Amino acid sequence: MSGKVNAIVAQSGGPTAVINSSACGVIQTAMKSARINRVLGATNGILGVLKEDLFDISAEKPETIEALKRTPAAATGSCRYKLKSLDESRADYERILAVFKAHDIHYFFYCGGNDSMDTADKVNKLAAETGYELVCMGIPKTIDNDLAFTDHCPGYGSVAKYVATCAMSAGKDTEALYTTDTCTILEVMGRNAGWIAAATGLARRVPEDAPHLIYMPEAAFSFEKFIADVKEVYKTFGRVFIVVGEGLKDAEGKYVTADSGAFSKDSFGHVQLGGVAEMLKAVVEKEVGIKARVNKPGTNQRSAMHFASLTDVKEAYLCGKTAVQQALKGINGKMVTLLREKGKEYSCTTGLAELSDVANGEKKVPAEYINATGNGVTRAMLNYVRPLVQGQAPITIGDDGLPVFMRFKRKPLKKKLPGYPE
Amino acid sequence: MSGKVNAIVAQSGGPTAVINSSACGVIQTAMKSARINRVLGATNGILGVLKEDLFDISAEKPETIEALKRTPAAATGSCRYKLKSLDESRADYERILAVFKAHDIHYFFYCGGNDSMDTADKVNKLAAETGYELVCMGIPKTIDNDLAFTDHCPGYGSVAKYVATCAMSAGKDTEALYTTDTCTILEVMGRNAGWIAAATGLARRVPEDAPHLIYMPEAAFSFEKFIADVKEVYKTFGRVFIVVGEGLKDAEGKYVTADSGAFSKDSFGHVQLGGVAEMLKAVVEKEVGIKARVNKPGTNQRSAMHFASLTDVKEAYLCGKTAVQQALKGINGKMVTLLREKGKEYSCTTGLAELSDVANGEKKVPAEYINATGNGVTRAMLNYVRPLVQGQAPITIGDDGLPVFMRFKRKPLKKKLPGYPE
Repeated sequence: MSGKVNAIVAQSGGPTAVINSSACGVIQTAMKSARINRVLGATNGILGVLKEDLFDISAEKPETIEALKRTPAAATGSCRYKLKSLDESRADYERILAVFKAHDIHYFFYCGGNDSMDTADKVNKLAAETGYELVCMGIPKTIDNDLAFTDHCPGYGSVAKYVATCAMSAGKDTEALYTTDTCTILEVMGRNAGWIAAATGLARRVPEDAPHLIYMPEAAFSFEKFIADVKEVYKTFGRVFIVVGEGLKDAEGKYVTADSGAFSKDSFGHVQLGGVAEMLKAVVEKEVGIKARVNKPGTNQRSAMHFASLTDVKEAYLCGKTAVQQALKGINGKMVTLLREKGKEYSCTTGLAELSDVANGEKKVPAEYINATGNGVTRAMLNYVRPLVQGQAPITIGDDGLPVFMRFKRKPLKKKLPGYPE
Repeated sequence: MSGKVNAIVAQSGGPTAVINSSACGVIQTAMKSARINRVLGATNGILGVLKEDLFDISAEKPETIEALKRTPAAATGSCRYKLKSLDESRADYERILAVFKAHDIHYFFYCGGNDSMDTADKVNKLAAETGYELVCMGIPKTIDNDLAFTDHCPGYGSVAKYVATCAMSAGKDTEALYTTDTCTILEVMGRNAGWIAAATGLARRVPEDAPHLIYMPEAAFSFEKFIADVKEVYKTFGRVFIVVGEGLKDAEGKYVTADSGAFSKDSFGHVQLGGVAEMLKAVVEKEVGIKARVNKPGTNQRSAMHFASLTDVKEAYLCGKTAVQQALKGINGKMVTLLREKGKEYSCTTGLAELSDVANGEKKVPAEYINATGNGVTRAMLNYVRPLVQGQAPITIGDDGLPVFMRFKRKPLKKKLPGYPE
């Protein structure tokens, strides 16, 4: 590539508190480069590229770009659009390259999870096949922490800090009001991996602290065992604080629902509203005979910028910055990874992994991080997650006493191509 | 009363982020008084008095007492035990006085809501009737903000700040991912009053900001109107962020459930798990045809010390402190109130209200704070709540990066009476 060319940044999948920090790292680093003309944003990830719905981030105010570090969710917009194989979705991949070509885009920075890395990889391969000069770099993003080849994912440290604090705080509430509201069930995200649930173990500094029980998708769930666990904790502490990952599975790998296990449809209704925690609340009330409450922070857990981890924000920024630096050095087709250095003090450097490898990998909570009874975590798990929650990320507070988040003005790029699909 | 006597502090009902600040105000002020010997704590509110389950707060370390200001929930323990009239529950009231007498307790400071003020009032009346020297003072506490005779209740400012921030943050998430996750419903507490839901209006600085729709128990809920509202917001913004108070009611004053309105049992199942938000999610998905998510912070909203309002913490402390100061001056049978001063700058002083008046009052969100269409709040509401969320209450962060809360050692007082009930 000779002369100045454009770069594009896109964000994909479920947002996090720090995916905007990664975007900020990309944007600020790219804007300083003599090689890059304009930094463009794709509105709603790859969907924005397909629709040629792009905007000029270089035209945004520097303070707007800086404020990305203090704003949760995905400022360019996100999506859940999944492209299939090069054969099956060839028209989509060709369209992406056509849009890139039309806007002189030769650097593609994609913040996302497995699927996004898969998309970036395939776009890259088609570019190579068709002779279009393109550098595709991936930046890891997921609160689920389930990407392989990286010690952890930006976004995880902040959700870990937040849910641990939720368990600790609501645990105090249960401790105060146990004579009536004896059991609390906190449902956290994690459809396939229990990393988020596991992080709440940090809240339990002494045995009577919440959470007393943690259930993760990696440990086969049994209703009988669950009821016995709850009864035992109730006997010991007079109250029970439970954390459940949303995607609990039974021994056969099936999601636990109101219809599974020893509980018939008649007991729990034909239509289940609410998630696994609402169902387990009904089980606790019926089988243990104590009142249970449900806390389900939902998307609040992945957007809790007001109590985000500074370590996470910094590492997210580092990943974005490194992606650009490596791309400018001629590296292509990689995702930036975080490598935990050996030693007593936590420190982290970056590495690189093949996009295709990350696309096909998945990292679950390993057996050595789950206790022998499948209802809690080990010291090794706590040692793993503790450094990731350190420090308070700065936020801006407005005159009204509440956080101030940025929003791009989004100066749209003039469309040069016909609509898609036509 | 001549010579030194003991004082007791008790906490009741659903905890808040700042009820411990009120207790701290009571304890630190009482411990400085030459009139008061020991400050005792009742374990789990009035239940602890009935069971003679008391502990010596004066024996706790000063730093433990100071840390009450940075700890959510109710450190002495709370309860939901409701005493009836003097006639119906006379044995209970007599027992309370017997316990007070056995432990030389002549000052009773009770932090709670209507029911607690009622209890304190009746204990006080029986003391007067039987010639037992007692001073009973109430300290207002409730996130629901529904106590009469006070401009607002300690606890409300912190929950207001937290839920507004939840709406703002999750609103950013919905804004980012609207192409698939188009609607978010945030369910907040407030079984009879919509003050908490109303506070989320602070998050909406410009029309496209969340929340787009706010439903409160004070505005009669109609499914038809709700569906029309959601469709209109969806058409305007392409996404919909809704806040609902947990206790929505229809035009006849009945709680809105899956069985009410135009929705038959068959459509929504026989047993409703989850609250009103889960049900409305099903309505939105069926009737508007967009995916909806539910965030239900539950007890996390009332224990969010990590983002509590400094104004709230200070006023809560002030109420506790004032209760003791007034009691020592000979005032009896009153609850401390907060009085908003006139003027452009917000300031608040304290007043006093009769316990019996507070016990029988209830303050709902007034009509002038609710918009004409019953799906949002007015500027007057925002002006009312804005000063209450100001400032960040300090917390202690441990070496592990997470908040540190206190817990009393609870040196139990030796029981002097037979068990109760015998």
